[in-house]
Amino acid sequence: MKISTLSIGDELICGQLTDTNAGTIASAFLAEGLRIQRHLAVGDNEPDIIGALADLERVSDAIIVTGGLGPTADDLTSLAAARATGRRLVINEDARSHARLMSGKLKNLIFCPLSDKQVMIPTKSALIPNPGGTASGFHLMHNGCFMFFLPGVPSEMIVMLHDTVIPFILERVGRKRVIRTSTLNLFGPCEAEVDELLLGIAQPDQGLTLGICVTFPWMKVTLRAEADTIEAATDLLLPAVSAVRERVKEYCFSSGGSSMDDAVAELFRDRCLTISLAESCSGGLIAKRLTDIPGSSRYFCEGAVTYSNAAKTRLLGVPAELLNNAGAVSPECASAMAKGIRHASGSDLGLAVTGIAGPDGGSEEKPVGTVFISLAAPDGCWTKRFQFSGNRDEIRTMTAWTALDWLRRYLMKRG
Amino acid sequence: MKISTLSIGDELICGQLTDTNAGTIASAFLAEGLRIQRHLAVGDNEPDIIGALADLERVSDAIIVTGGLGPTADDLTSLAAARATGRRLVINEDARSHARLMSGKLKNLIFCPLSDKQVMIPTKSALIPNPGGTASGFHLMHNGCFMFFLPGVPSEMIVMLHDTVIPFILERVGRKRVIRTSTLNLFGPCEAEVDELLLGIAQPDQGLTLGICVTFPWMKVTLRAEADTIEAATDLLLPAVSAVRERVKEYCFSSGGSSMDDAVAELFRDRCLTISLAESCSGGLIAKRLTDIPGSSRYFCEGAVTYSNAAKTRLLGVPAELLNNAGAVSPECASAMAKGIRHASGSDLGLAVTGIAGPDGGSEEKPVGTVFISLAAPDGCWTKRFQFSGNRDEIRTMTAWTALDWLRRYLMKRG
Repeated sequence: MKISTLSIGDELICGQLTDTNAGTIASAFLAEGLRIQRHLAVGDNEPDIIGALADLERVSDAIIVTGGLGPTADDLTSLAAARATGRRLVINEDARSHARLMSGKLKNLIFCPLSDKQVMIPTKSALIPNPGGTASGFHLMHNGCFMFFLPGVPSEMIVMLHDTVIPFILERVGRKRVIRTSTLNLFGPCEAEVDELLLGIAQPDQGLTLGICVTFPWMKVTLRAEADTIEAATDLLLPAVSAVRERVKEYCFSSGGSSMDDAVAELFRDRCLTISLAESCSGGLIAKRLTDIPGSSRYFCEGAVTYSNAAKTRLLGVPAELLNNAGAVSPECASAMAKGIRHASGSDLGLAVTGIAGPDGGSEEKPVGTVFISLAAPDGCWTKRFQFSGNRDEIRTMTAWTALDWLRRYLMKRG
Repeated sequence: MKISTLSIGDELICGQLTDTNAGTIASAFLAEGLRIQRHLAVGDNEPDIIGALADLERVSDAIIVTGGLGPTADDLTSLAAARATGRRLVINEDARSHARLMSGKLKNLIFCPLSDKQVMIPTKSALIPNPGGTASGFHLMHNGCFMFFLPGVPSEMIVMLHDTVIPFILERVGRKRVIRTSTLNLFGPCEAEVDELLLGIAQPDQGLTLGICVTFPWMKVTLRAEADTIEAATDLLLPAVSAVRERVKEYCFSSGGSSMDDAVAELFRDRCLTISLAESCSGGLIAKRLTDIPGSSRYFCEGAVTYSNAAKTRLLGVPAELLNNAGAVSPECASAMAKGIRHASGSDLGLAVTGIAGPDGGSEEKPVGTVFISLAAPDGCWTKRFQFSGNRDEIRTMTAWTALDWLRRYLMKRG
């Protein structure tokens, strides 16, 4: 079955909003062994929507359309769908009942007046229930192509996709090729280095492909095995995954959808250690990432964002003379900060970063991007200088990633 | 001129990576008064790329292609471009010299072995210089359609787009309609409320359109005026912008690309006030956002991420009895935290948040999403309870947005 996606919205085509629905839908289908053939995006205007539906209908057995079902005047998808398929647009009583019911349920969260516009549905369509919002979706068949229309709100769309669209399509797919994938996440090496490390693993003629996807500052290596049965796909995939793991070694911080933050959190839970942070140039970013994880209060004690020298002295006990002599961006200061927060908080580990995120503040000796990271632990205190490149945001991001990766490598060895 | 974009990459079509290039290109063209008609995405495989080029060629005068020019085996764009346009793929000496030069320049930042694959370019193409990377782009004409091929790395792509592609296209566009746009950013109301507030402002038949784009937890209102001259477009746009401002009042926190963080930063610079933070449930997120802004060290003194009760007492002076009686998630604790950090740091303002981000820790009386925000200032201390909904990430995001919006409104009044 050839499946395409169509995202509708001026905000998508004008660059105001990044379309995440296309990717979500593609991932969901891939997990079922089905690939999206092409993805198209057009603006909120009738001729373009009608044209897009006609073009995709030519090359697809199913089209998943998202966006433009909202209550506002620029939402034109239902109207265009009716015109494109020669149907009338009428008030759908089931959609209206649903909108009323949901509006009552949601009234504590948002207050939005109800609009009849949202309950106008093309005739000869089946509703797609939306348990999370007022706008119902709908699907219809035209010229042998299934068309599914879903709201653009990601949290509503995803539920409707899984509850209705995917089961509907899977029921109609006959024998299908099975695709199994596995993803390893790496931090450290560059793309070409990984490409060389993994040479010869892919065997496209046997259905085993390998993709490297760089997402600053880390990358994903995805292995895909395609075969007639789950067993055959698994037999193709697993040895390849082992081979990749063997070659990339400690560059690999996690697999699948698990992030660096998840990997660090899991290690903390396993090791029963606690941590406190002293951040200067990263300004709370590392604390934010550690506490993104539910349950982090079990190992994260406190964080001090000490931008001023006064705060470094008062909160972390960094001596004023040290700040005067070596400076706030120095290995001496970093290690005093790490030891200071560890001592003050009573946690097992103290992690500190100090550096120059820019754009100002750099010098010949310590250019923008100079960052010192220090880790104080029961078995020692280590401090290292890094030179990162890029803008302020990139330098802060690299600082947080490098600090978390360092924590990860420390915790791995203490297993 | 009808312009389309084509993004190439398995990672895009499989949902592993969100495509930002399409939006960047659309924004860049819109600023020149040109709209992207459609955006297509396909995977890294030759037949799909060739099919996509053929389809877009039919309906476009120019196609901007991004992705698949890298050094690794899954990058197939150059090969597919050659096949699609009946050209041979040959080593281009200029591209090779460029790659060698750039490789030398970049060697302090990344170490990547050079590959001849990246310098294979279809014959009868012109190179597009890439000042930021080793891979040259190229452009060619086929069946009356200009095709531009750029790398997928956003930082490289954007420079090549602005330096070469846009000037090339503008030179070939005859008389064009002028589009002027203006964007106002709102926080607080729901979409339907804004839609009602702005009723009657758009005048599509006169070339004035209005779009509302919701990007959790804020939204953009974009006005677009299209006319024959800059003057006529401006005359259409400016009164509409004033009318929108009048109606949305203090919901509007900034205009154009300026973020909530920028707006708050600008107010701090103007007011010459300093701030310190005491964060519990937001875990450093507010500090991170305040320090995202270059030069924030002038008004941001310090932040305390006090997850544990011990830290609340030691760093902020919150009495242990208060924590025992009222609890850490209480208006009393929030205001003690705000006053405590203000006093300890000596800054003009102290902002504190404490709450339950979930998924655990909620109760009947204080469910997940209960958050207290407190602002201690020279002229008083205000504390307010909020009830946010959503998952942990959404609750933390809403907490930070609401706290920053509160700061903004406070600073506005102290102008």
